[in-house]
Formats: sequence, structure tokens, C-alpha cells
Amino acid sequence: MTAQTLAPGTQMAREMAEQPDAVRRTLAALRPQRADVAHLFEGRSRVLLVARGSSDNAAVYGSYLLETRVGIVAGLASASVATHYAASLDLSDTLVVSVSQSGSTAEIVETQAWARACGAATVAITNVAGSPLACDADVALVTQAGPELAVPATKTYVGQLVAMAVLATALAPDPAILDADLDRVADEIERLLAARAGVGDAVEALQAASYAVVAGRGLMLGTALETALKLEETCLRPVRGYSYADLRHGPISVVTSGTAAVLVAAPDGPLAGAMVDLALDLRERGAVVVGIGGSAAFPTACDVHVAGPDLPEAVAPLATVVAAQLVVEELAQALGLDPDAPRGLSKVTSTDRDS
Amino acid sequence: MTAQTLAPGTQMAREMAEQPDAVRRTLAALRPQRADVAHLFEGRSRVLLVARGSSDNAAVYGSYLLETRVGIVAGLASASVATHYAASLDLSDTLVVSVSQSGSTAEIVETQAWARACGAATVAITNVAGSPLACDADVALVTQAGPELAVPATKTYVGQLVAMAVLATALAPDPAILDADLDRVADEIERLLAARAGVGDAVEALQAASYAVVAGRGLMLGTALETALKLEETCLRPVRGYSYADLRHGPISVVTSGTAAVLVAAPDGPLAGAMVDLALDLRERGAVVVGIGGSAAFPTACDVHVAGPDLPEAVAPLATVVAAQLVVEELAQALGLDPDAPRGLSKVTSTDRDS
Repeated sequence: MTAQTLAPGTQMAREMAEQPDAVRRTLAALRPQRADVAHLFEGRSRVLLVARGSSDNAAVYGSYLLETRVGIVAGLASASVATHYAASLDLSDTLVVSVSQSGSTAEIVETQAWARACGAATVAITNVAGSPLACDADVALVTQAGPELAVPATKTYVGQLVAMAVLATALAPDPAILDADLDRVADEIERLLAARAGVGDAVEALQAASYAVVAGRGLMLGTALETALKLEETCLRPVRGYSYADLRHGPISVVTSGTAAVLVAAPDGPLAGAMVDLALDLRERGAVVVGIGGSAAFPTACDVHVAGPDLPEAVAPLATVVAAQLVVEELAQALGLDPDAPRGLSKVTSTDRDS
Repeated sequence: MTAQTLAPGTQMAREMAEQPDAVRRTLAALRPQRADVAHLFEGRSRVLLVARGSSDNAAVYGSYLLETRVGIVAGLASASVATHYAASLDLSDTLVVSVSQSGSTAEIVETQAWARACGAATVAITNVAGSPLACDADVALVTQAGPELAVPATKTYVGQLVAMAVLATALAPDPAILDADLDRVADEIERLLAARAGVGDAVEALQAASYAVVAGRGLMLGTALETALKLEETCLRPVRGYSYADLRHGPISVVTSGTAAVLVAAPDGPLAGAMVDLALDLRERGAVVVGIGGSAAFPTACDVHVAGPDLPEAVAPLATVVAAQLVVEELAQALGLDPDAPRGLSKVTSTDRDS
């Protein structure tokens, strides 16, 4: 059974079904650029990521991957430091990676130009070849998701995660470190799309909840933030995405009966056990816990469980988000909303720096 | 009229009233340490901040202040990179600043030790002299807020902001750049505590709202995040703090009739005008806009306005948060909640790394 035979009704679902091919095409297109990226990084020691919205969540993944798997210090830039404060910083030791699906978001284009003026080398990650962001960068990593028509980013987001993984491996002593796992991602996405295991139950739990939080940590934090953003934008529900530790530190006090807690976890890694503990704690506080992915012990710690991929933590985010997309798309329809065109949003996003 | 004559009923309010003196004492104690901090930074080029919760919001302010006023690249560290992944990073060009009110939060103490092992010089910002964080640091900037008994951090948070300002100026070519403005902060806080202008109206608006968001940007982003955290922890309401631009980028779709939008703004600076535009936009979407601080044009753009300090943007956060505290404390009481001991929280916060 291929994903296409599901013949889903919404544009969002059709684009979700295209993700296995988008991953394969993007991997094939970007791997040959690893040498260019490595060359650009020579003599530099840091990576700074610039993004907004879903792209920002992809950047969070990239930052963790670089620090934990490659040993390079990475962080996220604040665009306003460039666009509004025009700060004068020395970025001569830095590779600045700017991420924008359209490659046309003005504040990201502007921040990339500022970074270059500050001495940075620049890589653009975008889905649109020939876009301003791609043209202005030293190296453009163009994801091969194809045109995305639904407002919620799905296949372009997964494409950005692939680009982040390729970028990280390009800077690693051995660029092949993740190759065998990356080659399995597309198949795992296909499997999740076909099985939809637990999706209906998760939708039911979220529909019944008065409030939802999403939590994850480490390499899965970006996936948690993306899941929260998608739930909020697409289902028009106020949803907060937390790092596991930030949630524990204080806001856990708002978790009570009637709250749905969506926990996004990897099958392995140093945080898999902590996510099981968090699930048990949140259930004690009265929350309905919807787990996505996680270790073998995770499903029984949750009230509802959505199957995630069989992939190691470093690349698990590339497919785990697809399980979350399935929930979001079905929930939007259950709520009578149009997931393809959420209220008040347009495809090329703008902040006040855009025309 | 001194703040003490207000004789407020809650511990939180009493500690809020101690803030002018806490600011004066902390400035007096930390300014003489500027030379030590500058010496420690010699040969280094970056600042990395480590914190959680309210301390993290103070770190956000510190990061913007360093980049926009001092021209030093700064960013926030992800504690799990140290505590769970034990990543091996080269931080020999970095000053790592760890922030914890108690100085005993295990993951922050552990991350500071990791940073030193990675080659970083270390500064601790804490309210407790002799705490593990202070003892382990190369330089300890001990805030002079005195013991804080209420769970919500108020005077210790403002103390942390003072420490951030002193730290930033210590690394500036001219450490006196902000001195005249810093010397006015305590008086401005005193004035806001006595006047409470607009606080009652803001409480009424928030009580009537079904959902609240908080937004700010740039140097005021940390204040917005802290206001959201305080509303959430103290008033047990799900509240989301956004950067101005992140809100515009997508989640603005959840803003509708019944939403209260709290906007935190500085009197001047490159974002003052944008905050007026955001207020008008959110009102068009049906939100009730509660403005705190801002430019002369800001109050008329908002439905309700709480007076902020007459201080330039660089130090405005030190007093603007006090206006937000007044709203939070009164709202908690109006909701019949005990602001001194929010449900499910304790004073020394812990994540899974604590005993």
C-alpha cells in the first residue's frame, strides 16, 4: 500500500503523503553539497541559525544535532538584533544558516545580509531555488519538497529537517555518520502514513480537552514546538509547546484535569526514560497524556499512544513529526475547520519588516 | 510616601515593595565587581547564558543588552546539552553566565561545571552567597534582594536584571554607559508601586478574558515572557508569551474575541512604533489589549493601559516588570488564589536532575 492510495481529501493530507518522496529527493540533492558546506566552514567554529515559525522549529533541531552529534557550538539568532537594532557584531568565526520555506520572508533575507556584513559565511535552507534568500547565500541548500499549497508547512518542514541533518553531517569529521539511518527515514514515514496507529484516539482525546500543552526535550524539542504550533495554527486552539524542563520548572501548575498533554519522544537516547516519568507525573495531575513515539515503555505510561518511527534519536524527529501531522489534520477536520487555510494566516508569512 | 506604607497583605506584595531597596543594594554591591568581570572576559569574545524559568527571562534581557548595546555575541544555552548529552564543545572563547536565584538548582550547577570543563570562564548570578553556584564560579555576582519567601520571584528577578545590566556594562568599552539611567531605576519602581496606575482596569480585563497572550520584542521580550510566566504560575491560567514577530508569524490566528493581549513595551527604541501597530491590529481582531509601558502614542492604541517607567529602553525592563507584577498579584487575589504559594510549585525548583 502506498501513501497515495489513501487518497486523502485535504491539500494538507495530500502534501503529507508526498513526504517520503520529498525526503528521498532532498537527500539526493543535498548530499553532494556537503563538501561545499564543509569548505565554507573552514576556519570557523560556530553556527548561528536564523528562522521564524516552523523554520525556527527546524532550526532548534539543527542546533541540538550540531552540539550533541558534531560538537559544534550552535544557537539561534534573534532577528530583531539585525533588523531593528542593526547591532554591530563580529561573526567572522560563524557560519550563519538562514531558514525560510519561501526564501522570501523579508526579515530573514535582511538578517542574512546583516550577518554577511558582520563577517559571517552564509548558508540558506529554502524550498525555492532562485529566491532572494537562496541567491544571496554563499551556499543554498534547496529542499526538494515541490510547491506547497496548504498553509501549514508539512513536507517543506520535513525537507528542512533533512537539510539540517545533511548540514550537520557535512561539518562532522565523518559526513557518513548518519547516512544509514537517514536512508531509512522515507520508508518509516511511509509506514506511519499508512498505519495511522493511535491517531483516532489522539484526536478524540484532544477534542475533549479544554486546554493542551505539548512537551519534548533535547533533539525532540523542535518536534514538540512544531506540534504545538501546528495545533495552534491549524486547530485554532491555544497550545503551548514546552521543553520538558521548562514545563517541570513552573507551568506544570496549570496542568490539571481537562488538560491534554501531548508528549513527543524518541525511541532511545538519554531522555527517553525522563519522558516516561513525565507522562506518569502528568497523569497523576489529572491530565490526559497523548504520547507520540518514545521508547518501548512509553505507550503504557500514556493514556493514548500514537506510533512513532523506528529510528534512532538523532534522526527520529524527521519522521516523528509526521505522526503529529496526522493528528493535527484529522483534528482540524473533526473540529469542522479547514486545515488548508487557517484563519488569519497566509503562506508567505510576514512580520513588520515585510512590504 | 514610601512603598512600605502601602502595607500590602500578601508576602508577594511585601517583597515587591522591597524592590527599590533591592535595586539600590544590588547596584552598590555589584558595580565594584565590574573590573573583575572585565578581566575574566579578556581574550574571550562570546557570552553564553544558562538559566531556567524566571532566571531564563532575565537571561533573555541580558542577551539582547549585550548584543545591542555592547556589541558582544550572546545566546542562551540548552542545559540538556550538558546534563543529558554531555556534549564536548569548545567554549574557550566564551564567558558562561549561569543564573539561579537559589544558586542550588542542580541542572544549572551541573551545567556550569560542564562549561568550565569545556574551557569557559564562569560568572554566577545568584541571590545566595555561599550557594554551590556562587562557590563554583570564577566570579559570583550576588544580588542583594534579601531572602524571598513567596514562590513567585519578584525582587530576586529584578535583582537579576540589575546584575545583567552591570555585567553588560562591565564588558562595554565604557562601563559607565548606563549608570545615570540605572541610578534612576529604584525611584521609578517606587513611583510605579505607589501609583498603581491602570492596574485595577487591567485586572478586570484579564478576569473577563477566556484566554490571554503576552507579547513584547527585543529588549522587552524577556519582560513579556516573565509576565506570561507569572500570570500562568500565579493565576493558574494558561498564558503564552510571544515575541512580537513570532505572534505575527502564525499564532495570531488564535487571537479573537475573548482574548486578552498583554503588550509590554518600552517608551522609546526601534520597536516602540511597531508595538503601537500591533496593539491596533490585535484590537481589530477582537482582542482586549492591555498595554504596559510604551511610548506616548501607546496608551490610546490600547483598551487598558498600565503605566510604565520613564526610563530609556536599555534599562526600562528593570522597572516595567514591576507594573506587570502589580497586575499579577491583584489578579491572583481577585481570582481567590494565594499568590504566595501557587499550586504545585515549590521555591527551589527542580527538574529531573535534582534530588
